[in-house]
Amino acid sequence: MSIKMERTSLSCLQTNLLLPEVEDIVKNALQEDIGPGDITTLLAVPPETIASASIITRQDGVVAGLFVVAEVYRQLDAELQITSDTQDGQSVSSGDTLCILHGRAQSILTGERVALNFLQHLSGIATRTSHFVKLIEDSAARIVDTRKTTPGLRSLEKYAVRAGGGFNHRAGLYDAILIKDNHIQACGSLKAAVESVKRYASHVLTVTVECDTLEQVEEAVAAGAHIVLLDNMDFEKMRCAVSIINGRCIVEASGGITEKTVRETALTGVDIISIGALTHSVTSLDLSLEMKLLG
Amino acid sequence: MSIKMERTSLSCLQTNLLLPEVEDIVKNALQEDIGPGDITTLLAVPPETIASASIITRQDGVVAGLFVVAEVYRQLDAELQITSDTQDGQSVSSGDTLCILHGRAQSILTGERVALNFLQHLSGIATRTSHFVKLIEDSAARIVDTRKTTPGLRSLEKYAVRAGGGFNHRAGLYDAILIKDNHIQACGSLKAAVESVKRYASHVLTVTVECDTLEQVEEAVAAGAHIVLLDNMDFEKMRCAVSIINGRCIVEASGGITEKTVRETALTGVDIISIGALTHSVTSLDLSLEMKLLG
Amino acid sequence: MSIKMERTSLSCLQTNLLLPEVEDIVKNALQEDIGPGDITTLLAVPPETIASASIITRQDGVVAGLFVVAEVYRQLDAELQITSDTQDGQSVSSGDTLCILHGRAQSILTGERVALNFLQHLSGIATRTSHFVKLIEDSAARIVDTRKTTPGLRSLEKYAVRAGGGFNHRAGLYDAILIKDNHIQACGSLKAAVESVKRYASHVLTVTVECDTLEQVEEAVAAGAHIVLLDNMDFEKMRCAVSIINGRCIVEASGGITEKTVRETALTGVDIISIGALTHSVTSLDLSLEMKLLG
Amino acid sequence: MSIKMERTSLSCLQTNLLLPEVEDIVKNALQEDIGPGDITTLLAVPPETIASASIITRQDGVVAGLFVVAEVYRQLDAELQITSDTQDGQSVSSGDTLCILHGRAQSILTGERVALNFLQHLSGIATRTSHFVKLIEDSAARIVDTRKTTPGLRSLEKYAVRAGGGFNHRAGLYDAILIKDNHIQACGSLKAAVESVKRYASHVLTVTVECDTLEQVEEAVAAGAHIVLLDNMDFEKMRCAVSIINGRCIVEASGGITEKTVRETALTGVDIISIGALTHSVTSLDLSLEMKLLG
Amino acid sequence: MSIKMERTSLSCLQTNLLLPEVEDIVKNALQEDIGPGDITTLLAVPPETIASASIITRQDGVVAGLFVVAEVYRQLDAELQITSDTQDGQSVSSGDTLCILHGRAQSILTGERVALNFLQHLSGIATRTSHFVKLIEDSAARIVDTRKTTPGLRSLEKYAVRAGGGFNHRAGLYDAILIKDNHIQACGSLKAAVESVKRYASHVLTVTVECDTLEQVEEAVAAGAHIVLLDNMDFEKMRCAVSIINGRCIVEASGGITEKTVRETALTGVDIISIGALTHSVTSLDLSLEMKLLG
Amino acid sequence: MSIKMERTSLSCLQTNLLLPEVEDIVKNALQEDIGPGDITTLLAVPPETIASASIITRQDGVVAGLFVVAEVYRQLDAELQITSDTQDGQSVSSGDTLCILHGRAQSILTGERVALNFLQHLSGIATRTSHFVKLIEDSAARIVDTRKTTPGLRSLEKYAVRAGGGFNHRAGLYDAILIKDNHIQACGSLKAAVESVKRYASHVLTVTVECDTLEQVEEAVAAGAHIVLLDNMDFEKMRCAVSIINGRCIVEASGGITEKTVRETALTGVDIISIGALTHSVTSLDLSLEMKLLG
Repeated sequence: MSIKMERTSLSCLQTNLLLPEVEDIVKNALQEDIGPGDITTLLAVPPETIASASIITRQDGVVAGLFVVAEVYRQLDAELQITSDTQDGQSVSSGDTLCILHGRAQSILTGERVALNFLQHLSGIATRTSHFVKLIEDSAARIVDTRKTTPGLRSLEKYAVRAGGGFNHRAGLYDAILIKDNHIQACGSLKAAVESVKRYASHVLTVTVECDTLEQVEEAVAAGAHIVLLDNMDFEKMRCAVSIINGRCIVEASGGITEKTVRETALTGVDIISIGALTHSVTSLDLSLEMKLLG
Repeated sequence: MSIKMERTSLSCLQTNLLLPEVEDIVKNALQEDIGPGDITTLLAVPPETIASASIITRQDGVVAGLFVVAEVYRQLDAELQITSDTQDGQSVSSGDTLCILHGRAQSILTGERVALNFLQHLSGIATRTSHFVKLIEDSAARIVDTRKTTPGLRSLEKYAVRAGGGFNHRAGLYDAILIKDNHIQACGSLKAAVESVKRYASHVLTVTVECDTLEQVEEAVAAGAHIVLLDNMDFEKMRCAVSIINGRCIVEASGGITEKTVRETALTGVDIISIGALTHSVTSLDLSLEMKLLG
Repeated sequence: MSIKMERTSLSCLQTNLLLPEVEDIVKNALQEDIGPGDITTLLAVPPETIASASIITRQDGVVAGLFVVAEVYRQLDAELQITSDTQDGQSVSSGDTLCILHGRAQSILTGERVALNFLQHLSGIATRTSHFVKLIEDSAARIVDTRKTTPGLRSLEKYAVRAGGGFNHRAGLYDAILIKDNHIQACGSLKAAVESVKRYASHVLTVTVECDTLEQVEEAVAAGAHIVLLDNMDFEKMRCAVSIINGRCIVEASGGITEKTVRETALTGVDIISIGALTHSVTSLDLSLEMKLLG
Repeated sequence: MSIKMERTSLSCLQTNLLLPEVEDIVKNALQEDIGPGDITTLLAVPPETIASASIITRQDGVVAGLFVVAEVYRQLDAELQITSDTQDGQSVSSGDTLCILHGRAQSILTGERVALNFLQHLSGIATRTSHFVKLIEDSAARIVDTRKTTPGLRSLEKYAVRAGGGFNHRAGLYDAILIKDNHIQACGSLKAAVESVKRYASHVLTVTVECDTLEQVEEAVAAGAHIVLLDNMDFEKMRCAVSIINGRCIVEASGGITEKTVRETALTGVDIISIGALTHSVTSLDLSLEMKLLG
Repeated sequence: MSIKMERTSLSCLQTNLLLPEVEDIVKNALQEDIGPGDITTLLAVPPETIASASIITRQDGVVAGLFVVAEVYRQLDAELQITSDTQDGQSVSSGDTLCILHGRAQSILTGERVALNFLQHLSGIATRTSHFVKLIEDSAARIVDTRKTTPGLRSLEKYAVRAGGGFNHRAGLYDAILIKDNHIQACGSLKAAVESVKRYASHVLTVTVECDTLEQVEEAVAAGAHIVLLDNMDFEKMRCAVSIINGRCIVEASGGITEKTVRETALTGVDIISIGALTHSVTSLDLSLEMKLLG
Repeated sequence: MSIKMERTSLSCLQTNLLLPEVEDIVKNALQEDIGPGDITTLLAVPPETIASASIITRQDGVVAGLFVVAEVYRQLDAELQITSDTQDGQSVSSGDTLCILHGRAQSILTGERVALNFLQHLSGIATRTSHFVKLIEDSAARIVDTRKTTPGLRSLEKYAVRAGGGFNHRAGLYDAILIKDNHIQACGSLKAAVESVKRYASHVLTVTVECDTLEQVEEAVAAGAHIVLLDNMDFEKMRCAVSIINGRCIVEASGGITEKTVRETALTGVDIISIGALTHSVTSLDLSLEMKLLG
């Protein structure tokens, strides 16, 4: 399984297709911030004032979310122009310009905070993902996200993980089967749980089984799991699991993996390293919008 | 102006009134995660299985969002029972139980991730806010949030800041006037901007002016600003500003304030310290749900 | 505090920024009227017929809502052209043309009623507001609206008040604090209520206290209220209150003020006169749409 | 055709069935007013305070909208109790209690304005309708509303017209055919327009033709119109039209009819008198909420 | 009453006016199919690839829904071009091209299934309706739909019936009165039910009475019904009913009418034949999309 | 792979968990039918009348959608009681009672059509699916649905397929990868397409490749496809394909399979038989609601 991130993998980012939900997410964010009106701008900025503005990064990082900025301003003022030489997934250095806005100063100022909130948050995710990816770039393992995302922003956050060179785990409870300890307990046994889901679930869905012990690993593979998730195992145990599985299915490591432990985790030979912190503990990328009046 | 956080300030949290929007936020989060169905649980857990589950913290911190957990499960399964001895705003220690669920195992498992995502995120905000508050607890200054919030979650995040002992800045562009450099530039002068907004805005709205220099501070006070925001000033400059203002209006410090600088900032005598990182860079509180089958 | 309405105050109306909610309000109104289809027009008017139509006023008044008319037709038929020499906030005389539509006759007819319903209602508010404003134009007092608005149309109605030369009171329960008799009773005393809200509320929010007696007025000012609302006081009592307050805070008069009493109210020296009837009892401006077929 | 309003006609009001849209209308109104929170009540009223409140009328009138008040409080606080001895459609005198609320003081106060806004507006419509109805109560004519309603509230306003003893005209562009001068012009002739709609429209829909002249009246009846609308005719002309039609179809009078002209209009023998002002120019009924703390 | 379908009746289809609800229906369908993304297309098709595609029919039939296809692609990719020589309501033969798309291959592929699902379903309805219409084309009777439609698609399905040469019955419970056996029973008698609705309902609404027996038919006509619905009567009874009614009101036949019985039903002299199967049991028209890459 | 349908497979139906979207689907359907009100019922049925009603099948079939009926009535009238001895997925015979309603006659009648429209449509799908399943019950193949569903109802229709003993294919474009001829063409080659999606897609997603020729089958298996879809192959070719694949991956047959060809298709040894007609051409099950007044 070739899972190294390459330049062309960005193809999954280069699309003009806007997810139907993004329009609603942006509309909701604008409504939340503007409410009955941006009073300061309406009263202090003449409507005819034209300006140019640059969104600039004050930190090194990886960009994600430029198309959301474009959608924010499209909804606010269809005549505002946005141009950019940067693409989502690209590395940028402190001081770089990410995009340039040109049009009514009122529009630029009213949309500023919402646009930056999206771009800072998503670029923060892409940047941290990219750190993890670089730490294991000589291994064959993938850095993968989880369902520990911010409510309402999952699709965008998973997009940001891809922009950072990571990969996506399942999107929700609906697109893959993941049997955890509670399911096993409720179903009677690991074997019974795997058999039950394989008997009735769609044939297009994969089955992952979360394992705490090497006995469970063996049981899961024997029962026909497509993926075995090693939950909070130490390095030694992970190496054993990889050796036991021996290519019979995909091996995923999960549980509190940090920048400090990711490299040794990758070296155990696991295929997939899933990290909740990519999305549940985000440090936003520090961006600013610099505006120049054109009269 | 008395602005010290006291125990009774929690009164703003003790309410059964659910904001109209919270129902939609939770519904949307459930739809995002469940989509066409939690396949694993539907196939591996018998619908008649009853269970009890505890949400437990694995870190010390401050809790926020228990009422959101209740709303998640109310929407999913109105018969599920939730009880709790903990209240939002309360400090908890690693190992503490935050609430107990009792009812259908299917419901508990299907709602688990969404419930935890809300509670971890909001408690993360409350916890960090609480750290800042403690660092300045012998001063008279308030820790205050900003508009750098996660799109779609502003009300909840501002609630979490209050739970952590902090205070709220304006809710959006609509409930207070904040004149920044770009507004000043577009309006011609600081004085002109303040006069314009005071002439036409509602008499119930306050006017804050962002100042970079001490000259601007004097100009803002003279023009009738209710609040002066000291933007990225060093400690020396802040002390001067406080001295110049001399109680004529509220003084707010803002710009990159961290746990390292917050105490010295407070000691300059400012009234308000606004910190974007409370909400734009959240480390979620580590929680887990432990389930026990009851048959 | 300079609060006289001037020509330039219209700046808060001259904006291309559409509130996010206006799109939904208009969509909903169209759905309400058109439902599964404008059967008469579909069957009696050939789709290729082009027409020109003028919206004309049959009464003198002040216009508000032209941008809503534009939004109605944008949603219905993006190719229809609208032009206007009139602006919201402008006085018009019976017979004046407010705007001209050009395009498909079907579109003009299907949108006619919804467009007029908005424009008549909002212009009715602007017109009545303007009457009140003129009655006190030699005083320094402001005519201000209330929360007694039509459910679902508050932002638009408050916009119409501004178009008529009035000013806005708070937008809702969230952007300013207004302590009424019931709050005072529940909190124990006026002083306790003011102290409680000042201790915990955002520093950007003002506190208004509704007072029935001169004793309460004194108590409210002493407690630090930013605004004192004189509730249903007679002229003599209002004059006393103004004299007691003596510039220490803003003074608002409220309670059943009509065209007959507004002038004497203003002459008592109050700063703000809030009038529920501006929005709760609206007489719509009489408008008509005159269409000419172009073939 | 028996069209006199009788006591039993209230049957169309006595129903527990809530229109699906009313839930959304109320939710939207609450969101509009409460936004991110009723700050005053949250901070000044202890959550455990219980109160009782009466909604009292300060004017004589006819009540409409009590079920909307119930829905407002159901959404806000399901535990609040509402009782009422009054029914929509009932005449009340100044000082009468319309309904009694019992429960958390916070809930009562937070919902007060939205509840009253609905009830005052709808009762205002019912009251004015009732005036018109009484003025012609010895005639056989019906007082009927129009599509000149407040955007977003049409169903509720038409309900209020029924509560006042009036009847409803068509609900929108979809449930009846109404051929106006512009349709006639676009279709070539009155006869062509009637034939076109009768050839293709659903057989369950009636056809009304708006007529300015007696010639048009004759032409409309001959073409098979079910209803002839006499547009802005004087009394003499209306009497002629009634005599020409002679029972062959229903006769509707429309155009600027007021309390002064309605009686003479009815005496011309028309069946239906439609009055836009019932809903486009509403004076709300003066109501107040009186609260008593219970501890 | 002239009710024969003629070529010009298509006028009710030839309009650029999009029903407000269609935008939402299409958006919802796209969200349902695309969810968090069309993974295959994003990963296998380069975003810059341009293609041309034809939607072709593999069966003879009548087309309905081309404007919905246009709306699907407008929402997905505003730059995609759609051209068509075919119009809704037109008969097509196996192999005919219905429309041609030109633009980004990604957009064409991502929207393909949703576009075809609408077009196949609606064309299936139009085609079957057209079969029924042809079977009785030498009679004066109309083929009419019912409320047995697919939840959420009623307006579109009723449009497809018109495209097939049929006519619409009432749109819902709101635009016409239809008294059934249960209403009669609850009201006491057929006469009481008709009188009750005529006394209180809008004068623009027609009253249909469902009759099982010839006695009921006579009673309904006498009570003033506008339309008599003959429910599941045999041919002999229908002929009697038509003869009894003798032009005094419209006669509708309903109940299990199929392609085998429709002609004899029409020959009994009824005016209207309503058929639930037009919309409750739809065989979709077999269409395919053929794409050609342009580089 | 055990894929035979067994009694216990119904477990995926026996759940109290309502999909978040079902509430909205039902609300929308009620709004569509009721609009501004069920005029007939409001005027002809006294609100205090209580009734009992049975939903009865007039055909043999398999039931699906009883929980949707419950949701319809819960939204309309929370006090109405519904009881049922039948479960979704159960076979019923003509004359059987599916469920019993008890409560206000108005509620029963107003909800009747919407409730039946859902239940007839979904039971029609379950019934037809069940026919297909029985035709191959001695084989190991699964009957599977497609994305050719009715816009807006996919989740419910896929649920009905399961109720009929069938299985689900992917839910949308997001939960599995399906490479079709157009993707292959745009990507350059089958091999390139498979490699591209495997390199960048989530590791939890399976890859299906649509094959027209046996060469493609071999190429797909070699490239690592998890499932090979045999598109419109004749029986001979399918047998060859099964033999070539020889258990290396799952084999799906698709393309115009009917009741006449399904058995021979299953006997070729394919694992999966996907049939668009299960959902794109539905004959609804004939149901009726019989009501009895209780006074």
